Amino acid sequence: MDFMITTATEADGPQIQSITASTGVFNQEEVDSVGVMWTEYLTLGSDDSGYHFLAYRDGDRVLGFAIYGPRELTDRVFDLYWIAVDPTAQCKGVGRNLLTASEEAVRAMGGRMLIAETSGTPYYEPARKFYFAMGYENEAMIKDFYTPGDDLMIFIKRI
Amino acid sequence: MDFMITTATEADGPQIQSITASTGVFNQEEVDSVGVMWTEYLTLGSDDSGYHFLAYRDGDRVLGFAIYGPRELTDRVFDLYWIAVDPTAQCKGVGRNLLTASEEAVRAMGGRMLIAETSGTPYYEPARKFYFAMGYENEAMIKDFYTPGDDLMIFIKRI
Repeated sequence: MDFMITTATEADGPQIQSITASTGVFNQEEVDSVGVMWTEYLTLGSDDSGYHFLAYRDGDRVLGFAIYGPRELTDRVFDLYWIAVDPTAQCKGVGRNLLTASEEAVRAMGGRMLIAETSGTPYYEPARKFYFAMGYENEAMIKDFYTPGDDLMIFIKRI
Repeated sequence: MDFMITTATEADGPQIQSITASTGVFNQEEVDSVGVMWTEYLTLGSDDSGYHFLAYRDGDRVLGFAIYGPRELTDRVFDLYWIAVDPTAQCKGVGRNLLTASEEAVRAMGGRMLIAETSGTPYYEPARKFYFAMGYENEAMIKDFYTPGDDLMIFIKRI
């Protein structure tokens, strides 16, 4: 595949929002949260918003995106807020390439740790397998965090 | 002691900021973060800022404060962002009363879980003992989170 991963620009907004909505995994509040981050990213920039957006492109199409940023009150720890891939482009390494690019960007900013929070439900088993395969460890868990029966799983990679 | 715990009002700002700075436990970034929350609380209100401030008063003096608010993307989980007590008023139950009042307020809003994040360093041993004594469990830990050698300890109470 001939692809490029670059900083997301204003024109990518509709495709990013549409990918988020179309995965079928995220609820409305989660979809809306991407919109809020996107608006802050566009209006304030990466440094002031704390949100860095990467877009995975195949020609004019955006096939996936990642959002990461520094965790407040920590020394060089970064949150991986989102990785989402267009449902029609799954299993082609889009997520893997986006995560690797995010890690490289975080390393270039001096980051020493990446945190990815995900859910413990069966729906998110692919996400958990993905993080394990990418070298993350499930270092902490909070039972019933998202809803009763839906645990928080904190995945960590020290880079 | 004759005290009152109420919602904090604009006039409490200087005392809240001064308590935060005078505890000697928090670094400048942490002290500043209280200022940011305070400004959002005053300008947007509790609901839109997501920050609820309680002040512990003895006459005109504010002896301590607590900040809590709903955790985004969760169902009825609340973060306890801050509890701080004036160094001249320690060990008199100010923190205990503030935490109890925060829990009651969270319960009244339908909350089912409170999360308090603190540090694993010796400096924070009183804080950790305090949470244990108040019925919290240390359910999760992330090594080297704040800085190398300074772990994140996540305390949880299900209410």
